[in-house]
Amino acid sequence: MRISADELRKLSIDIFTRAGVPKPAAVRVSEHLVSSNLAGVDSHGAIRIPQYVQRIRDGEIDPSAQSEIVNETPSTALIYGHWAFGQVVAFDAVQLAIDKAKAQGISIVSVRNSTHIGRLGEYAEIMANDGLIGFIAVNGQGAGQFVAPSGARERRLSVNPMAWGIPTGRPDEPFVLDISTAAVAEGKIRVKRNRGEAIPEGWVIDAEGKPTTNPADLYGPPEGCLLPMGGHKGYGLSLVVDMLAGGLSGGGCSRPNVKRFGNAIVIIAVDPSFIRPGQEVAEAVGSLIDYVKSAQPAKEGAKVMVPNEIELQTRRQRLAEGIEIEDETWNSIAATARELGIEL
Amino acid sequence: MRISADELRKLSIDIFTRAGVPKPAAVRVSEHLVSSNLAGVDSHGAIRIPQYVQRIRDGEIDPSAQSEIVNETPSTALIYGHWAFGQVVAFDAVQLAIDKAKAQGISIVSVRNSTHIGRLGEYAEIMANDGLIGFIAVNGQGAGQFVAPSGARERRLSVNPMAWGIPTGRPDEPFVLDISTAAVAEGKIRVKRNRGEAIPEGWVIDAEGKPTTNPADLYGPPEGCLLPMGGHKGYGLSLVVDMLAGGLSGGGCSRPNVKRFGNAIVIIAVDPSFIRPGQEVAEAVGSLIDYVKSAQPAKEGAKVMVPNEIELQTRRQRLAEGIEIEDETWNSIAATARELGIEL
Repeated sequence: MRISADELRKLSIDIFTRAGVPKPAAVRVSEHLVSSNLAGVDSHGAIRIPQYVQRIRDGEIDPSAQSEIVNETPSTALIYGHWAFGQVVAFDAVQLAIDKAKAQGISIVSVRNSTHIGRLGEYAEIMANDGLIGFIAVNGQGAGQFVAPSGARERRLSVNPMAWGIPTGRPDEPFVLDISTAAVAEGKIRVKRNRGEAIPEGWVIDAEGKPTTNPADLYGPPEGCLLPMGGHKGYGLSLVVDMLAGGLSGGGCSRPNVKRFGNAIVIIAVDPSFIRPGQEVAEAVGSLIDYVKSAQPAKEGAKVMVPNEIELQTRRQRLAEGIEIEDETWNSIAATARELGIEL
Repeated sequence: MRISADELRKLSIDIFTRAGVPKPAAVRVSEHLVSSNLAGVDSHGAIRIPQYVQRIRDGEIDPSAQSEIVNETPSTALIYGHWAFGQVVAFDAVQLAIDKAKAQGISIVSVRNSTHIGRLGEYAEIMANDGLIGFIAVNGQGAGQFVAPSGARERRLSVNPMAWGIPTGRPDEPFVLDISTAAVAEGKIRVKRNRGEAIPEGWVIDAEGKPTTNPADLYGPPEGCLLPMGGHKGYGLSLVVDMLAGGLSGGGCSRPNVKRFGNAIVIIAVDPSFIRPGQEVAEAVGSLIDYVKSAQPAKEGAKVMVPNEIELQTRRQRLAEGIEIEDETWNSIAATARELGIEL
C-alpha cells in the first residue's frame, strides 16, 4: 500500500480524534508518526497507530492529560508528563528548552512520567532547525530492560537512546545523530528471528553470557541480552543517559521490578550565538561535513555518508513518491480505523 | 622505579619551575600529571614531563601566558587559551563553568587555542566532586587526525574524546566516564607494534580500507586509519565532539593541512539541585550503580564493574604503595631534571 504523507496524516488525525484524543494532540502525534515514516524510520511511524489506540483504551496513555511545569528558573525546568502522549509532552518540553536557551544561552529541561516519545531525531532536528545545538536522551524509567552491562549476562539497562542536533547553515539539512546505546535495536533481532536469519556476533549474548548468532537466544527461555554498542564505552554512555534522564527528573533509573514503561527525558539546548556568531559556528560544522565526506570510500563505488544523510534523502523521495506501508501494518491500521467507524 | 605521589609531585614542580613555568602553573600541571598516574592512566602522567619541557623550549607552550575571557554572559563564556598550559587553561575554564552553573543551574564554557589539556576524566571528576553533572570534550583543532569516517579509508578525525562526571552521593566515588570516540587509543597500537603483537579486528584498517590485525598497518607507509568506536555510532559521536569543541569555540573542526595541534574545549556543567534536591538525584545514581553491578558476570568469578571503578581502586593502591614508573620513562625524566640542574 502506498499513501501520500498528507493522506496518512489525515487518516491518523481522524483515528486519534475518534479515539478520544483532543485535536491538537491528535495533530501533533500524527505529525510525528508521519515524519518518522518520511525519514524511513518506519518502526516509529504509522505502525504505532493501532498500538497507541490500544494504550489509550488500556488507560496507559491519558490523551487529555496536560504536562505540568512543577519547577522553573530562567535556564531550567522540571516537567511532569502525567502520562499524556509522549510526542506532545516532549514537543512542549523542547519548545520550553528552546525559549530558555534563546534567552540565557543554554538551558536544561527534565521530564518524568511521559509515555513513549517516539523518534528522538525529530526533536534534535527541531532544535537544530531553530538555530540551536540540541541534545535529548530518554530512559525507560526502569522498565524495558534489554541490555547487559559489559562483562555481565543479565539484563540491567533499557536501550537508552540519545540524539544531537546541530545547525549546518544549510537550510533543511541539519546535522542529526540519533542512536541508541545498545549495539542494535531489539526490533531488528525480532525481524531476523521471524525470517530465520542469523545475526552478526556482537549484538546478543545468550543466557550463559556467550556470544551468539541465533536471534532466538535473546528471547529464550532462558532469555539472553542485547549488548551495549562499542563495548564498555557504550555501556558507560548508557549509564550516563539513564542517570541524566531518570536520575535528574526523578522518573527513576533502571532498577528491579518496574512494571510501567515510561520515558523520562533530558533536553539540553544551546544558542551558539551567545558564544560566537551563529553563522560562523554553522559554517565550521558544514565544512567538517564536507571534509569527512571527501574521504576515499573503503569500498570502490561506495559513498562516505554523515548521520541523517540517508534520512533526508528518504524524506525527499517519500514526499515525492508517497510512503510504502507493508500489508500487515496497513491491515492493522485499517482494522483500527473501521472499529472507530472510519470508512476507508 | 617506585616513587610516592608526594615525591613525584615535588620533583615535577621543581622541573617545571626551573624550566621557566610560574609556580602556580607548575603546581597545577604537576597535580594533573600525578593524579593521572594515581588513576593508572600513565599515558597522561609523569611520562609527559620531558615532552612538556621540550614544548616550552620549542615555543609550543607559553608557560607565562594567561587565558582570557573574551565573551561572557551569566551562563556562557568564550575563552582564548593563548597557548598557555592546557591543564591550567582547562582547570580555570572548569572553575568558571562550575561558578556559572551554581548561579544559573546550567552553563557552557567554550575554549580555543589551549595546549594539550591531559586526562579529561580529571575535569569531569572535579565537577562531580563539587556536586555538579559535568561534560567535557576536546578536539585537536584540526590536527592529530587518526580516525576514518565509517565506510572510508582516509583519516579525517582526531580521537575526539569526551568525559562525563556525575555525583553518586558517595564521598570520593563520583561516576566518571572518560572515553575517546576512536575504537582504541593510538598509543595502544604503538605498544602492540613495538611488542610484535597482533591487534584485534575492529581497531585498524589498512590503507586499502581492509580490516587488519597488524598494528604496523596503521603507520605504513602507506598509512592506515584507526576506526571509530562502535561503528557509525562512534563516528557520529566523534563528529558531535568536533562540532561542539572546534565549531563553537572557533578553534576549528577537522580540516586539511593543519600543522599546529591544540585542544579546543567544550564544558557543560549542570547543578542538579535546580531540578530536584541534589541528594535525591545522587541517590538514584548510586542505586543504578549498585543495580548494574548486581548482574551475574558473563564469566565465572569475574566482577561486573562500572566506569571509574578501576581508576579509584588504583588510586587507593598507589597512594598507599607508591607509583611504579618504568625505567625508560624514569630515565627520560631524570635526564630532563639533570639538564635543569636538579640533583636526584
